[in-house]
Amino acid sequence: MGGVLLGIAVLMTAPLFLDFAAGQASAAHFLSAIVIALFTGVTLLVLSASKEVFDLTRRQAFLTTALAWTLTPAIAALPLMSANLSFIDAYFEATSALTTTGSTVMVGLDTTSPGLLLWRSLLQWVGGIGIIVIGIIVMPFLRVGGMQLFRTESSDSSEKIFARGLDLVRWIAGIYLGLSVACAIVYGLLGMSTFDAINHAMTSIATGGFSTHDASFAYFESAGLEWAGVVFMASGALPFVAYIRTLRGRDKSLLNDIQARAFLVFLAAVIFALALTHAELNDVRFFDALRLSAFNVTSIVTTTGYASDDYQLWGPFAVGAFFILTFVGGCSGSTSGGVKMYRLQILGRVAMAHLTRLVTPTQTVVVSYGTRRVDEEVEIAILTFLCAVLISEVAITVILSWLGLDLVTALSATATCLANVGPGLGSIVGPAGNFASLPEAAKAVLSLAMILGRLEYFTLLVMLAPSFWRG
Amino acid sequence: MGGVLLGIAVLMTAPLFLDFAAGQASAAHFLSAIVIALFTGVTLLVLSASKEVFDLTRRQAFLTTALAWTLTPAIAALPLMSANLSFIDAYFEATSALTTTGSTVMVGLDTTSPGLLLWRSLLQWVGGIGIIVIGIIVMPFLRVGGMQLFRTESSDSSEKIFARGLDLVRWIAGIYLGLSVACAIVYGLLGMSTFDAINHAMTSIATGGFSTHDASFAYFESAGLEWAGVVFMASGALPFVAYIRTLRGRDKSLLNDIQARAFLVFLAAVIFALALTHAELNDVRFFDALRLSAFNVTSIVTTTGYASDDYQLWGPFAVGAFFILTFVGGCSGSTSGGVKMYRLQILGRVAMAHLTRLVTPTQTVVVSYGTRRVDEEVEIAILTFLCAVLISEVAITVILSWLGLDLVTALSATATCLANVGPGLGSIVGPAGNFASLPEAAKAVLSLAMILGRLEYFTLLVMLAPSFWRG
Repeated sequence: MGGVLLGIAVLMTAPLFLDFAAGQASAAHFLSAIVIALFTGVTLLVLSASKEVFDLTRRQAFLTTALAWTLTPAIAALPLMSANLSFIDAYFEATSALTTTGSTVMVGLDTTSPGLLLWRSLLQWVGGIGIIVIGIIVMPFLRVGGMQLFRTESSDSSEKIFARGLDLVRWIAGIYLGLSVACAIVYGLLGMSTFDAINHAMTSIATGGFSTHDASFAYFESAGLEWAGVVFMASGALPFVAYIRTLRGRDKSLLNDIQARAFLVFLAAVIFALALTHAELNDVRFFDALRLSAFNVTSIVTTTGYASDDYQLWGPFAVGAFFILTFVGGCSGSTSGGVKMYRLQILGRVAMAHLTRLVTPTQTVVVSYGTRRVDEEVEIAILTFLCAVLISEVAITVILSWLGLDLVTALSATATCLANVGPGLGSIVGPAGNFASLPEAAKAVLSLAMILGRLEYFTLLVMLAPSFWRG
Repeated sequence: MGGVLLGIAVLMTAPLFLDFAAGQASAAHFLSAIVIALFTGVTLLVLSASKEVFDLTRRQAFLTTALAWTLTPAIAALPLMSANLSFIDAYFEATSALTTTGSTVMVGLDTTSPGLLLWRSLLQWVGGIGIIVIGIIVMPFLRVGGMQLFRTESSDSSEKIFARGLDLVRWIAGIYLGLSVACAIVYGLLGMSTFDAINHAMTSIATGGFSTHDASFAYFESAGLEWAGVVFMASGALPFVAYIRTLRGRDKSLLNDIQARAFLVFLAAVIFALALTHAELNDVRFFDALRLSAFNVTSIVTTTGYASDDYQLWGPFAVGAFFILTFVGGCSGSTSGGVKMYRLQILGRVAMAHLTRLVTPTQTVVVSYGTRRVDEEVEIAILTFLCAVLISEVAITVILSWLGLDLVTALSATATCLANVGPGLGSIVGPAGNFASLPEAAKAVLSLAMILGRLEYFTLLVMLAPSFWRG
């Protein structure tokens, strides 16, 4: 945690200089936040200097991950308070950034200081690479939500695992940086200002969705930029392990990955279906409908959350479809949230196996996913994960209703925060709306929902087990 | 199937005589429906006379159950067409009756012929006892949705199982009839006409919810009747096995049953919470709020579906709560639908066990339910059941959205039909609304949803498995 806080302090120097150079009052906020982060970080490091840190137990791994994602936003929120936000509002915004959700309570982005805008984008960017590393290295070890399926070489010595982990982190960082730079260059060439290109590149690859303009991507009014956005949002939602395998020459193409392939096929099918109905129902030219559908569907399914149009005006089918799409998510080991493609694929296989077992109970039915065998432990883990999504959705919707939110707002705000997407439905939290007007208590609950979803539910939920606190 | 059709023909003679005596045109419809049912039933019986019927294979048991619940409404619908309904509308109404759902497309009930009103109630009444028998005797054998948990003496010879089954059917029929008669007497004493008392008794114990008045229970404007309704709706949603055990002297009280106890505690807690918020928010006297909450919450949770007030006017918390309550349902082996209390209880235990396993993966964690052990087969069956609810809710909502229904109508109509409750939310299908104005295609899809939910999903879904049709 001390190291994380020092990292945050270093990261804050960039927006500090930007706002200092622009003579913005928020520079002072950044400065004091850096002092607080440095002081707390150094204190923590000194206090724990005598302890061996790389030999984490499972409980410590759970606790560290949970604390990193709950406490970091509290420090990261401090500079945001200079935009006239209460602490809860700023915490919501910082959590939304770090979890790469992209729901916002800030209005008037077009006149907000460049340092604050950069800070929001930077948080999404580091949150994005953070979750890839956790998803590929920590989650399979913790067996959260069926991620043990992606465990490899578990019999290796812990030294080897550590060396392999460092190697993986280098690969992930290289690919993440490469994609971000490529995205910024393409956005710049297609007409964004340098500042906008850098910010949007960071929030596209992180599938975060924060923009530097209230109108989000619609601000640029450029078909080219929208199509480029589709490509880079999708690239952030693909499994980073597949990138590494392809670059290392172990696979010929990204499409060799069973999950990446299913994700892209699913995305294309939904885009096409929604484009067809939008063109048909609302008398839009098919190619315009295709672009709008491609951008907004990719934005929701990759859990980015940019908007280029208010798709709620496309008719009831679009509203229903976008609500359901909120839950889907991208691939494992990517920056995207949601249920994720591999769980849906395995759910389909488990359901089919279950039906076969019902018909012929004596037959042994083996569930496999690509070359991996899905054993009963993984089966139960994935089914339990889906129930955790469902129960969280239900519980938080009830709390939000109790706080006075209407059903569509409560249901969709919960879904969009749990899946780290960004916009909900309805006039308040919809793609043309803003979370600012919600009651503070609702924002606190939704901040928790974002962290719950980001950490695949069970990293937080294990703390409800009495056995977690025993011994 | 032949026997079922003959039974339907016999059952139709009661409304036939009623409408004939009242000189109603619908008498002719009943007569022709009886002829069709008799003719088809006898033909089927003659065709299968040489076959041994009591030695059903699993596939035949699945197929018979599915056919009985899909084809019977087609015959039962015929007389309803005399109320100016299309065949799809009449099929929807008959399915809603037989599955004890209670959603209706009929308006002007107060001026509808007594024969038709009795027919709707009779269908709910036989549908209710039908599902208890299937739930207690057939489902555990078919291992649908974790019902194998309630299997007993599975090592017995098939002859003994058959004898025991007959004995169980007698007990169930006796209790069901006893409760219905008691209910009719109480309703009559509290002020209902004999006709209303008989009809409402049948639809209360069946947790069906059809009324003889458009205003449903609100028509009677009687606090006493509402409280009596609470008691009898709840009595239909309790596990009938617990009644039998108590009457046989094996248990001292119904409350010895782990499921019945949880159900009643849950019901009381929700009633109290909603009464408090309703009294607080809307300036209603607490005892009025308590009665309204008791009646309407019991109506939804037992999946009956009577209404005594438009609870959508109680505020957003009530709307959210009623949406969620739609899914809950009563107990196994009762007339109620929904997910059911034992699955929620086991889900909680499985989730806790899962958390413990995450913290200490080497520890063996045993899940138990009362005196029974929940093995991995049951665990997976129950988790898969919950996923089936979720996927059905999602798929049918998307189809209804595509047919033009708004999100709240689509979501809540799907939920209320899958859980066999009755009313949905919103101005169209809400407690003050009616399913009549929905497109015909939506009614066909929702009819299927009612049967899907009634037969615990997998009795229909197994037919999607290729292995069902092989060999």
